[in-house]
Amino acid sequence: MLGSCLENVRKNVPLVHNITNYVTVNDVANVLLACGGSPIMSDEPDDVEDITTICGGLNINIGTLNKSSIEGMYRAGRKANELHHIVLLDPVGAGASALRTDTANGLMKEIKFTVIRGNISEIKTLALGSGTTKGVDADVADAVTEDTLDNAIRFVKSFASESKAIIAITGAIDLVADDKRCFVIRNGRPEMGRITGTGCQLSGMMTAFLVANPDSFLEAAAAAVCTMGLAGEIGWSKMQEGDGNSTYRNRIIDAIYNMTGAMLDQGAKYEIR
Amino acid sequence: MLGSCLENVRKNVPLVHNITNYVTVNDVANVLLACGGSPIMSDEPDDVEDITTICGGLNINIGTLNKSSIEGMYRAGRKANELHHIVLLDPVGAGASALRTDTANGLMKEIKFTVIRGNISEIKTLALGSGTTKGVDADVADAVTEDTLDNAIRFVKSFASESKAIIAITGAIDLVADDKRCFVIRNGRPEMGRITGTGCQLSGMMTAFLVANPDSFLEAAAAAVCTMGLAGEIGWSKMQEGDGNSTYRNRIIDAIYNMTGAMLDQGAKYEIR
Amino acid sequence: MLGSCLENVRKNVPLVHNITNYVTVNDVANVLLACGGSPIMSDEPDDVEDITTICGGLNINIGTLNKSSIEGMYRAGRKANELHHIVLLDPVGAGASALRTDTANGLMKEIKFTVIRGNISEIKTLALGSGTTKGVDADVADAVTEDTLDNAIRFVKSFASESKAIIAITGAIDLVADDKRCFVIRNGRPEMGRITGTGCQLSGMMTAFLVANPDSFLEAAAAAVCTMGLAGEIGWSKMQEGDGNSTYRNRIIDAIYNMTGAMLDQGAKYEIR
Repeated sequence: MLGSCLENVRKNVPLVHNITNYVTVNDVANVLLACGGSPIMSDEPDDVEDITTICGGLNINIGTLNKSSIEGMYRAGRKANELHHIVLLDPVGAGASALRTDTANGLMKEIKFTVIRGNISEIKTLALGSGTTKGVDADVADAVTEDTLDNAIRFVKSFASESKAIIAITGAIDLVADDKRCFVIRNGRPEMGRITGTGCQLSGMMTAFLVANPDSFLEAAAAAVCTMGLAGEIGWSKMQEGDGNSTYRNRIIDAIYNMTGAMLDQGAKYEIR
Repeated sequence: MLGSCLENVRKNVPLVHNITNYVTVNDVANVLLACGGSPIMSDEPDDVEDITTICGGLNINIGTLNKSSIEGMYRAGRKANELHHIVLLDPVGAGASALRTDTANGLMKEIKFTVIRGNISEIKTLALGSGTTKGVDADVADAVTEDTLDNAIRFVKSFASESKAIIAITGAIDLVADDKRCFVIRNGRPEMGRITGTGCQLSGMMTAFLVANPDSFLEAAAAAVCTMGLAGEIGWSKMQEGDGNSTYRNRIIDAIYNMTGAMLDQGAKYEIR
Repeated sequence: MLGSCLENVRKNVPLVHNITNYVTVNDVANVLLACGGSPIMSDEPDDVEDITTICGGLNINIGTLNKSSIEGMYRAGRKANELHHIVLLDPVGAGASALRTDTANGLMKEIKFTVIRGNISEIKTLALGSGTTKGVDADVADAVTEDTLDNAIRFVKSFASESKAIIAITGAIDLVADDKRCFVIRNGRPEMGRITGTGCQLSGMMTAFLVANPDSFLEAAAAAVCTMGLAGEIGWSKMQEGDGNSTYRNRIIDAIYNMTGAMLDQGAKYEIR
């Protein structure tokens, strides 16, 4: 099932508009090409509406904000909503600075996101900022482990329900949920944290998966997470003596490039809760 | 002949000022170093005139515009013209948004370009925007193939004549022309399209080739195209099981680093029409 | 001794705030992860104070300035000084344009830097700009070689004394000095100059080394220089036929990832003068 989501990306070659940080942007572009999508980058407010119009999805990543790109995010997001395009939010560093927290919360209020992907700390920051008195209980642990899993699943479903978006929390165990179902995913390697931008890459790829699978957003988001995690496992298995994080980065992207739907179906490790 | 153009780059180490997009800028820098040039990047309007003054060539790429960098392009372009430096335009995404189309057309009107490099769709956009009543017939097919070649050659020579620049159209078949002669180049691999920025890399490298070969611009531009295409072939021949677009990117740059004039002369596949 | 400086980075995982150029920023992030640190990038004036507050060190690199990021450098620098954080200046291109020279000199006047790292030409520009009549004699040769070494050592100690910062001049021979002692380092390979950004990478890494070694700044700075140079030697020893500067870039970062304190102690080539 997840394998067909990947195959649909390769078949449909979705064009994804990325407003993303300048640290990992090249890797985001190459991962999008590796999975079968097509990337275009633009953050200038006067350019983003035209660009998002010709794309199928919009990936907003707040990793390196500036005043102009923030305006670009709002304008692109509104236009994408108007066109009923897929819109993803990657709230990089929400909670680490007022500007990042405020920008993420402000975008959440004005733009309807199809999916939000971040680590547990970023997603908790968004949940606390949602500002409703009946708000989500964000009192979950700061890491999703076997011990904290039940509570984390409740949290992610509750926030999905409130935000009306699919929520993807990535970490040692990944959770991808709507208000009813939660994919609990155990692919990946801890060494992926020693490469900059694997999260940003996943966000770009997830946007492409949703565009190419309009009838099964939750499965598509889970498939993207499994693809990245499985690529991390395959890439690691090819590491030779003396290889480090730079070679590992290349091998992960290479593994995505070579992954088939059948490989994904066989390698994906998940349960639905 | 083309081989000596590459050797002149290695001999003269031309310094190239790049105002280019933040997606592929690192690869542009490493390709410039690989071919024997030296890169410097600057887009701040108050910095570009000094920087372009100490360089031999200016590479303007509109892949990720913002209001400040657009002003930087005009100021650097005017200064480079004043100093009779090589200036290249890479109109990334012209035709995809009004801002990109208008910026490319505006630059064309105010700056004299030595060479313009893009895909067929971008170059057609420029030809249509040239706005003369006797204008170029841009009614060519959207891909240069054996079937559409004659018409495409007429188009590229005609636009070279009107724009008074060398025109390089890259795709499955590459065309590099002035108003009289057209190099028809058949190097390269289709898989190069699965790497972000091979076009941007070529533009940076082409600028260096022209700076180092002031008496044979057309041959220099063709040599840069053949160098990139041949590197794509050599890089592909070294791909091993499990390698993908990330490793391919590295191998192409490595192949440029190791290419000699003799290798280029032997591997270049072109005819002059 | 230098080996323990590296081990302290791996133990303490220092968080480093980077305001750095968009050309080499991805490599800076991956090198910081490779050596055991943790990178965060932010240049927006309204974001930098919060970000620098949660970090242990600030790396300011002027490689691609714009008006907004210059303001970000001042605001982050002042905040870091207020918090007694490590602050490094990498004056990329000082001397090449008025804006770069003025920005570097302006930052020197207002911000107290723990360490300044550049090539001999950039550091001479700063020394000349210090503007005191008793100023440093910047009349040293433009390359540090065995022939010019004595004079260069006098210069670097004198400028360290005047600027009250550790000064690191990198080139064929590297010098790292305070006002009393100068590490003369002979690690590295000339081919590192054919990769973009090895200097920027070193600046990011050096910031992490100082944060993790608060009681021995000079040794920490020298250890970072030896780590980069030794990684260049190890990476080069693994180069195979057909490899070029792109693969070399990866191998250097990989070598940092795999370096132990014992390897550094064994491979570091330096004398103290």
